[in-house]
Amino acid sequence: MLTDRIITTAVTAALVEDAPWGDLTSEALIPADATATATLSAREPGVFSGGAVFAAAFRLTDPSIEVTVIANDGERFEAGDTLATVSGPARSVLTAERIGLNFVQRMSGIATLTSLFVAETEGTKARIVDTRKTTPGLRAFERHAVRSGGGHNHRFSLSDAVMAKDNHLAVLTARGLTVTEALLQAKEQLSHTTHIEVEVDRIDQIEAVLAAGIDTIMLDNFTLDQLREGVALVAGRAIVEASGNVSLDTVRDIAATGVDVISSGALTHSVRSLDLGLDVTVV
Amino acid sequence: MLTDRIITTAVTAALVEDAPWGDLTSEALIPADATATATLSAREPGVFSGGAVFAAAFRLTDPSIEVTVIANDGERFEAGDTLATVSGPARSVLTAERIGLNFVQRMSGIATLTSLFVAETEGTKARIVDTRKTTPGLRAFERHAVRSGGGHNHRFSLSDAVMAKDNHLAVLTARGLTVTEALLQAKEQLSHTTHIEVEVDRIDQIEAVLAAGIDTIMLDNFTLDQLREGVALVAGRAIVEASGNVSLDTVRDIAATGVDVISSGALTHSVRSLDLGLDVTVV
Amino acid sequence: MLTDRIITTAVTAALVEDAPWGDLTSEALIPADATATATLSAREPGVFSGGAVFAAAFRLTDPSIEVTVIANDGERFEAGDTLATVSGPARSVLTAERIGLNFVQRMSGIATLTSLFVAETEGTKARIVDTRKTTPGLRAFERHAVRSGGGHNHRFSLSDAVMAKDNHLAVLTARGLTVTEALLQAKEQLSHTTHIEVEVDRIDQIEAVLAAGIDTIMLDNFTLDQLREGVALVAGRAIVEASGNVSLDTVRDIAATGVDVISSGALTHSVRSLDLGLDVTVV
Amino acid sequence: MLTDRIITTAVTAALVEDAPWGDLTSEALIPADATATATLSAREPGVFSGGAVFAAAFRLTDPSIEVTVIANDGERFEAGDTLATVSGPARSVLTAERIGLNFVQRMSGIATLTSLFVAETEGTKARIVDTRKTTPGLRAFERHAVRSGGGHNHRFSLSDAVMAKDNHLAVLTARGLTVTEALLQAKEQLSHTTHIEVEVDRIDQIEAVLAAGIDTIMLDNFTLDQLREGVALVAGRAIVEASGNVSLDTVRDIAATGVDVISSGALTHSVRSLDLGLDVTVV
Amino acid sequence: MLTDRIITTAVTAALVEDAPWGDLTSEALIPADATATATLSAREPGVFSGGAVFAAAFRLTDPSIEVTVIANDGERFEAGDTLATVSGPARSVLTAERIGLNFVQRMSGIATLTSLFVAETEGTKARIVDTRKTTPGLRAFERHAVRSGGGHNHRFSLSDAVMAKDNHLAVLTARGLTVTEALLQAKEQLSHTTHIEVEVDRIDQIEAVLAAGIDTIMLDNFTLDQLREGVALVAGRAIVEASGNVSLDTVRDIAATGVDVISSGALTHSVRSLDLGLDVTVV
Amino acid sequence: MLTDRIITTAVTAALVEDAPWGDLTSEALIPADATATATLSAREPGVFSGGAVFAAAFRLTDPSIEVTVIANDGERFEAGDTLATVSGPARSVLTAERIGLNFVQRMSGIATLTSLFVAETEGTKARIVDTRKTTPGLRAFERHAVRSGGGHNHRFSLSDAVMAKDNHLAVLTARGLTVTEALLQAKEQLSHTTHIEVEVDRIDQIEAVLAAGIDTIMLDNFTLDQLREGVALVAGRAIVEASGNVSLDTVRDIAATGVDVISSGALTHSVRSLDLGLDVTVV
Repeated sequence: MLTDRIITTAVTAALVEDAPWGDLTSEALIPADATATATLSAREPGVFSGGAVFAAAFRLTDPSIEVTVIANDGERFEAGDTLATVSGPARSVLTAERIGLNFVQRMSGIATLTSLFVAETEGTKARIVDTRKTTPGLRAFERHAVRSGGGHNHRFSLSDAVMAKDNHLAVLTARGLTVTEALLQAKEQLSHTTHIEVEVDRIDQIEAVLAAGIDTIMLDNFTLDQLREGVALVAGRAIVEASGNVSLDTVRDIAATGVDVISSGALTHSVRSLDLGLDVTVV
Repeated sequence: MLTDRIITTAVTAALVEDAPWGDLTSEALIPADATATATLSAREPGVFSGGAVFAAAFRLTDPSIEVTVIANDGERFEAGDTLATVSGPARSVLTAERIGLNFVQRMSGIATLTSLFVAETEGTKARIVDTRKTTPGLRAFERHAVRSGGGHNHRFSLSDAVMAKDNHLAVLTARGLTVTEALLQAKEQLSHTTHIEVEVDRIDQIEAVLAAGIDTIMLDNFTLDQLREGVALVAGRAIVEASGNVSLDTVRDIAATGVDVISSGALTHSVRSLDLGLDVTVV
Repeated sequence: MLTDRIITTAVTAALVEDAPWGDLTSEALIPADATATATLSAREPGVFSGGAVFAAAFRLTDPSIEVTVIANDGERFEAGDTLATVSGPARSVLTAERIGLNFVQRMSGIATLTSLFVAETEGTKARIVDTRKTTPGLRAFERHAVRSGGGHNHRFSLSDAVMAKDNHLAVLTARGLTVTEALLQAKEQLSHTTHIEVEVDRIDQIEAVLAAGIDTIMLDNFTLDQLREGVALVAGRAIVEASGNVSLDTVRDIAATGVDVISSGALTHSVRSLDLGLDVTVV
Repeated sequence: MLTDRIITTAVTAALVEDAPWGDLTSEALIPADATATATLSAREPGVFSGGAVFAAAFRLTDPSIEVTVIANDGERFEAGDTLATVSGPARSVLTAERIGLNFVQRMSGIATLTSLFVAETEGTKARIVDTRKTTPGLRAFERHAVRSGGGHNHRFSLSDAVMAKDNHLAVLTARGLTVTEALLQAKEQLSHTTHIEVEVDRIDQIEAVLAAGIDTIMLDNFTLDQLREGVALVAGRAIVEASGNVSLDTVRDIAATGVDVISSGALTHSVRSLDLGLDVTVV
Repeated sequence: MLTDRIITTAVTAALVEDAPWGDLTSEALIPADATATATLSAREPGVFSGGAVFAAAFRLTDPSIEVTVIANDGERFEAGDTLATVSGPARSVLTAERIGLNFVQRMSGIATLTSLFVAETEGTKARIVDTRKTTPGLRAFERHAVRSGGGHNHRFSLSDAVMAKDNHLAVLTARGLTVTEALLQAKEQLSHTTHIEVEVDRIDQIEAVLAAGIDTIMLDNFTLDQLREGVALVAGRAIVEASGNVSLDTVRDIAATGVDVISSGALTHSVRSLDLGLDVTVV
Repeated sequence: MLTDRIITTAVTAALVEDAPWGDLTSEALIPADATATATLSAREPGVFSGGAVFAAAFRLTDPSIEVTVIANDGERFEAGDTLATVSGPARSVLTAERIGLNFVQRMSGIATLTSLFVAETEGTKARIVDTRKTTPGLRAFERHAVRSGGGHNHRFSLSDAVMAKDNHLAVLTARGLTVTEALLQAKEQLSHTTHIEVEVDRIDQIEAVLAAGIDTIMLDNFTLDQLREGVALVAGRAIVEASGNVSLDTVRDIAATGVDVISSGALTHSVRSLDLGLDVTVV
């Protein structure tokens, strides 16, 4: 969740980064009594995300600025649509503008990209999920944007679910445990509320993993045929996640194999900021 | 500059975001005495940036991890090149891996993109510079990456240089000042060390701006012909910056007009993380 | 997990709370060149927890203090046993003493109490788990102490697992959903890695909850007969947690009903600090 | 004193610890427009403490929650009494509930225990005071709770009064100073506003300590007869504090010896949280 | 600029430093319902600075205190003038008083001293500017106070302009570069918005520095004759700053030499707090 | 006390204030491999204070810098004396220089001024003490400097001793209590370790105050005759502090009246930074 506290902390840090001791230009050139009105407009179509964050950039700069967010997070818009309006002291509006845009453009970029993946999976049971390949410091914002785009989230961090990969299991099997034993031993220590996901690279690894009673099995870099075979083999004994080679070109076919979850780092690590602009009038 | 203090602060925050109360998987599955060696490898060619940041992710997770960064920031590499090596306690190496990659992939993505713009301007006097369209919280990192790619930086923030745009000047002319008067009045208040840049949209605005003795004039969204005309008109009385419609397709022609500086938000707001991977062996 | 970063943060805060601008007594009365040796001794039997935290209190006061922790976390000791030794500058040792003790006495108190509950459940499959009734600011420490005592942890926080209670479901059924529908609708939004636990007060609520495919069912304030009936009814379709009326007198009978998990707030909300003392010699 | 700033800081930290990225359960199961009313009820008799802290847990979660604290800090209540009422958005009320209770249950536990000690000393001049054996991070809260129970506070920290013990003085006498000289030398350096307390283990140490003109003498682990003898010997030349072997069984006799102050670590280091519950109705 | 955020941060820190756990005196002696009115009065003439900071000390202690600042920053006042009024809960007013005064007395001391320097330069084009010899932690406040006194600011920090001194250039010339080359090489790396100032000790160094196209040349410890000669030689090719031996006795003559900027560390490093007092009435 | 933690916190903040994103000049002009040696020299005589703080400015900038502090805090020096030496990477030495000087010049200024007051009181029993009129954020540093100069400290803050003034008592007498009753009532609530000081303006107020058994009586703005009369009247029943009209001209006569403590705000609120310089050689 993107809580008010998380928004306030990150937006305040961004405002300080962008104006550690004030906005020299506004103070030198804008009369203290000038006011501004502004509209946030879409220059291209997309899916909106970050309305509360955009508003916070202005409110945390100057509580007397009024922001009306018109579009809901997750709402689709067209080029030319007005997404929000802003009014207040001109100095403050101009100071906050860039930070408000930096957040909402990035978040809407992620939401829009996610929505394209989600559209490709329509009619299947597969959900599109994010990964830990998020921008340092902005994970809660980017996960929220993925949800705005119709996607779902994976675990938040290393602290709230287990994801066992090759490396994790290899060292234990090298020490004489079977994969099943290694996983059962881990389960014995973990909280009963900790979700356990295990990554496999080959079909023949699946049974040993399922024998430990884990929650999700990730089929990494499987071909479509292998995915179908894997789904059949798991047969509902665990959630099936597909990972690797996920793109807008491939995602529909992957979803059609019957997997439950498709994860993609590209949702957050390679995003074009959406072209949203703020049209300001100062009087 | 990307100081040690800035690196430590941001990397620590990213590590806490990614593992607020530890790495459940490593603790449950990796023996405390297992060690890991790893190599950071390029999966595609590019320009490196963020070596010290990558190393910090491991060192701040566990001071006993040894990281050797092989590539220098700004160095060009090919797919398959080894960029750094890591060795230390396996639990810690696996815990830090993702954050190290998230930083270095993003920074190298920016450096690589910047280097493409810079290559296009070879033989001209134009420098490629960034903007304030950076990721919230990561400005110092992204500016450093632009420099790694051969680019230059614009002002850091609203607090260290003046950039007067339409909105700033319109309100003063509406109150009866000429543009020249408005700028002179601002200069009177500002520190003598504050660089003053003014954005103009039309050729006929240039003389009034120069009359105030400003430092840089930005020609916004000018055609190539207009840029040439602008450069001739300014005639060395100020630095000339071109902005707007800057892309890999257009930048060479823009540089050829004789401008001093070309700024592009795309260097930082729409970046693909470079495909770098960490190959880990746990024993 | 109790990471080094969490220890450093909380112990530093405790040291600052206890000596915001230094230790007046040591500075006024102890020569700067005096040294101290000290042993941490048990005045009563128990289970140890917090060795690394005890050491941190001294190390963060003065890096030149040497602390050797003899007892492992989770180790049982008798009255009179030496648990750790400390040596270093006398001023610093005396300054750090109280904070080191405050942590280790509390943590060992929790570990010892937990071990009593765990001993009662020997031979059953039930695990003893903590709750969110922890001391504000010290949750990671108290969860660690519960593990030192042989117990297990429940979810860390509201952010990492779902626990649906009466209040949560009542409002949805009042709006026309069945309990099953309400839970299914929640699952649709949540990450596939989020563990879902639902609390029921009566046997007849169990089937509707299980129909939604949840992970753990909590039987709240059930009699022993009802617990047995509940376990039989669930029949392995979910983890069964017993809660309410859990004490050292009742826990063995509860465990014997076949439940998987027994949670008790008393492990952390009403703890007697264990009587450990530091015997210091200054020369 | 328990200032608003201290409350805000600690309660905010506790809320973040308990819900770093929000309350998954409330968000998934409670409609955004649902409201809740709740009453804080006593399940057992006691003395109230922490009303402002309880209210802060809700207010800092959501400023639109209204909390009315009915009981004053220090007020005695019976099982069944309503101590406070809460109303507001259901999601927020349920999110804040546990933290509000964790504070007020612990603080009222301390106040109630303290009040039992105070009741035992009625009719004597002895005051019951706390020690530095408080929970790390919560000292101001626990000192406040002791006052709510009719007790008094000892020094806040190592920085605001001197407490010289055996160890402090032994090293100086070993270097050739008498105890009197050592204390006089310390007084010479200290602020005239610094209270000086000295702990003695034997009657025959008293005169040398008093000769230095100190403020409080602590008689540590004295028998009742020794305490009476000590009080007579001091004869008003310093405040007399008794320490050691203080329990509900012994405190009345100790108070009857004529000491001024009785300190007990048990007031804060071994406390049972009082059984207070929040009855919530969501609509 | 002295932003609200900077004021809030520094004043909060000062209030915490001065009352980490409350004001014992007010709580012990002032009834909770007592109110206070107070006037900030000048005991000597001067120039006011810090009105918003003074108000913040009270508002951040207790939002219910009302402060009316009568004098504007930069306004001249006489002994006996009322500069501000305060009213609110007596406990809070008395708690905040000292911190409010500490800031406003120091800032008005700086403004007053600066105004004396500025008065001496009347009729010349020289501006009086501060240096980096400010009080650690209070730079933004002291720069603001200099502006209140009619002075101007130099660069804020090492991060926002270049100031090359002897030491910086000597090492490069020792390595075979001319001063001009060294400066040109530095310019090549720096942002085009970075102001470059170079300090020279002798007339004969000026041409080589100007040849690099720098922005400001500082003539350090020049005699009046040398200053005049320097100004003539520079002839408008750079801003000319005089530094060294600047006092109230010398500044008029220095200004008369035709320099543009005169910098003085004394404005901030050796300041007498102005005698302002708060007359409080409690009822 | 000036602890390492306090030094680290304040010096780090000062370094960040002075170079938030690095030292542009050093990076642009100093080769990475250049080294510097420097000596801290006195340009005028004085008393040293702040050696550890000076060293910290360099060490916290770059741990590889070596600083040898030659003068002890409290040591008197002459113009020309070398007080410390510094060597290390030239970039880092030049970056840290100003902050190191800003602290040590101010602290030595305070120590030197204090030593002048102390010299005037030689042969009397009066100690010179500071007040709360310290620079916001630097109280621990300035108190330390006062001690370096041979002075003593007053209470640290509002939280560690009571100072009752006119305003505090007037409101209680207005409500029907005598001054004695008001003070006794306050003592009843306060910790037995809290020092109680009361300010009086007239001789005839003394008896009522002493009747409450307070610790220190402050005679505010008394003439020399009144001070002598006050000292005689108090006759050892409390510590006697003189305040008001304290200057280098008056302090000897005040001390001769027999008072125990003389407090002066001027020690910290109006201080000239001592002229200490750093002579740097870069190679």
